[in-house]
Amino acid sequence: MNNYPSILLSDAVEQMASLPGVGRKTALRLVLHLLRQSGRDVEAFAGAMLRLKQEVKYCKVCHTISDQEVCSICQSHSRDKQTICVVENVQDVMSIENTGQYNGLYHVLGGIISPMDGVGPAQLEIDSLVARIAPEGIKEVILALPTTMEGDTTNFYIYKKLQNLQMDKDNQADIAPIKISQIARGVAIGNEIEYTDEITLGRSIVNRIEFKV
Amino acid sequence: MNNYPSILLSDAVEQMASLPGVGRKTALRLVLHLLRQSGRDVEAFAGAMLRLKQEVKYCKVCHTISDQEVCSICQSHSRDKQTICVVENVQDVMSIENTGQYNGLYHVLGGIISPMDGVGPAQLEIDSLVARIAPEGIKEVILALPTTMEGDTTNFYIYKKLQNLQMDKDNQADIAPIKISQIARGVAIGNEIEYTDEITLGRSIVNRIEFKV
Repeated sequence: MNNYPSILLSDAVEQMASLPGVGRKTALRLVLHLLRQSGRDVEAFAGAMLRLKQEVKYCKVCHTISDQEVCSICQSHSRDKQTICVVENVQDVMSIENTGQYNGLYHVLGGIISPMDGVGPAQLEIDSLVARIAPEGIKEVILALPTTMEGDTTNFYIYKKLQNLQMDKDNQADIAPIKISQIARGVAIGNEIEYTDEITLGRSIVNRIEFKV
Repeated sequence: MNNYPSILLSDAVEQMASLPGVGRKTALRLVLHLLRQSGRDVEAFAGAMLRLKQEVKYCKVCHTISDQEVCSICQSHSRDKQTICVVENVQDVMSIENTGQYNGLYHVLGGIISPMDGVGPAQLEIDSLVARIAPEGIKEVILALPTTMEGDTTNFYIYKKLQNLQMDKDNQADIAPIKISQIARGVAIGNEIEYTDEITLGRSIVNRIEFKV
């Protein structure tokens, strides 16, 4: 599909196909759909993308996307301000919020340590995490990073950083230690045992928990 | 996924999800991808969609998308101007062009007759097709519409219209009749006979052609 009958069409398809997972055929279909909409609708579409890029803010506390300087979660009075859940990106905040199982604060790293992609701790919001935890008040840090090698590396790096912080504090007076936890890894709900990969199944046996009714 | 942390983000996701086949989860992924691009890149993306909608023209002869008043195919001197291929939409022009098997002109109907969707002949470029064929010069009209009931209905409608035109002409002097053909329907290249649906297979037997080497 190289022979577009119009440069404008070819430009639009080119741009649409630059989105991840959108091939040229799909891009053409999407662009021709837009073309069938009213001028006002296409302006609304293009405007929403532009406004998002130009006007969106990132919460200066937890670094999630926000309309204000400090996001609504960080500002909320009804949330547990003694717990911070560390996540890779904004989607993860939304996913965990949608579970309805968590009522603490978040900290968005903006990625995970991945030497292959040239992402080191300095590119991530790890120092700002430590700075949030250094003063008193935080009782638990939940590490909710991907269950991959990169996620594990990042977990370990943060764990070490927080341990150092703890040791510095221990020299001071009676301060309660911070609990560092990670999300449970195991057989996904609804999955058959026989189709679960052996690493996951092995971990789920090693990390078994007491059966409670 | 209702709790977007920002109205700007929620607007952008809403717009992206209005594209056909794009769900909310995919829309969020695409929008966050855009957000990670530079401001200039997002402007290029939004600008390409806006410019396409605002500046694109439709060829006043064949109604395909074009940058000029008359498209490059209609303007070309190397194409067979005695043959018109009737198609549903712009994608079909591109698909047929990509086969490299056709060197005539096109006529884009802008849809097919579909009473269920409220599309009648008046909404389509059928009158303009008849107007193109009425003067002398066209020797063959190839109907390349979808092989669906709607496509067949449209084929039949156009056939009748052109037959009437022919009869009007027959009253005049010695004018050669216009040939009306439709694209071949049969077993797709590379397909197994046993997996071909029975309607297609039946048609391919009824409409068999002489074997030539």
